[in-house]
Amino acid sequence: MPKGVPTTVPDDGLTTRERRNRPLIMVHTGPGKGKSTAAFGLAMRGWNQGFSIGVFQFVKSAKWRIGEQTVLERLGELHEETGEGGPVTWHKMGSGWSWSRKAGTDEDHAADAAEGWQEIKRALAEERHDLYVLDEFTYPMKWGWVDVDDVVSTLVNRPGRQHVVITGRHADPRLVEAANLVTEMGQVKHPMEVGQKGQRGIEW
Amino acid sequence: MPKGVPTTVPDDGLTTRERRNRPLIMVHTGPGKGKSTAAFGLAMRGWNQGFSIGVFQFVKSAKWRIGEQTVLERLGELHEETGEGGPVTWHKMGSGWSWSRKAGTDEDHAADAAEGWQEIKRALAEERHDLYVLDEFTYPMKWGWVDVDDVVSTLVNRPGRQHVVITGRHADPRLVEAANLVTEMGQVKHPMEVGQKGQRGIEW
Repeated sequence: MPKGVPTTVPDDGLTTRERRNRPLIMVHTGPGKGKSTAAFGLAMRGWNQGFSIGVFQFVKSAKWRIGEQTVLERLGELHEETGEGGPVTWHKMGSGWSWSRKAGTDEDHAADAAEGWQEIKRALAEERHDLYVLDEFTYPMKWGWVDVDDVVSTLVNRPGRQHVVITGRHADPRLVEAANLVTEMGQVKHPMEVGQKGQRGIEW
Repeated sequence: MPKGVPTTVPDDGLTTRERRNRPLIMVHTGPGKGKSTAAFGLAMRGWNQGFSIGVFQFVKSAKWRIGEQTVLERLGELHEETGEGGPVTWHKMGSGWSWSRKAGTDEDHAADAAEGWQEIKRALAEERHDLYVLDEFTYPMKWGWVDVDDVVSTLVNRPGRQHVVITGRHADPRLVEAANLVTEMGQVKHPMEVGQKGQRGIEW
């Protein structure tokens, strides 16, 4: 964990408070495990600080429900019941967005992804959340389903104090350039390499 | 997210079910952000599956309380109240273990760390938990406060079905060798490099 001490102090005319409160663009990329898990861990941390959490999940299947969704939505209910933490909203990009949907064509998927991104833009413009998790959002960017320059300029120019974390492999260099914090999860060793199958509590 | 399909099937005499249910040793290491955050995200996922979660945190200060502790302990309370999820136990290595404790000497810290490790050994022998988070445990290993060979042989020979995730920089090669899954968090870009200070909801 960083000690909270900057290694350099920039000549940017900001006070320490302004610099401390600067909203961040964060990217978790690379081939290793932990990109989404760390993003949802960050959501849990933000919830505890009373942040409004918005998850926009570009999922493999709309039927697939990960444990984090259950837990974070439960934490959102707790907020409504007791005032603890913050509100949580979980979107799966409309009702049917899915990049493995068998019935759909690539054109359908591209249109659904573009629609999902428009919803994220509206949320950012309205400052709906304090922390956005755009889970596996690098893929529609990579496949040209959303315009990378539009994503980057929207993020860079977003109003207010909104943190954004984007996960997925192959983050576009323009996104990496615009981000404040980029972590590359490297795969040193993975059990599926040696025949281990995914299992409950670990993969989902 | 892995698709759950092994790239090879090993000749180890195990059935798919046995292989699926094999307990894992996981290591999150490297200089980048997300090592602990991903481990606590995994704990959230395990909680949702009804796992008993044991966190053993080798903390910088016993007074330091991260958001994840509040949230995971709250989830543990929910389990007691409603039966949702699993139980959660959070240890800070006795009452005073701290590697930055000003009053203590190195000998005190080493003794406290060794004592913390003995407690983990007892827990593993008694199969108290389904998932252990040994947060920042690489440091007492690196500093020789616990014996690396003892750690590795204890983990490799632990009974039953207990998952273990260890976080921290500079994971010992013997631990990496024994682990089933190792992720190296690489630091591509960090805001503290450009004068950003730590902030609530992101660093804690």
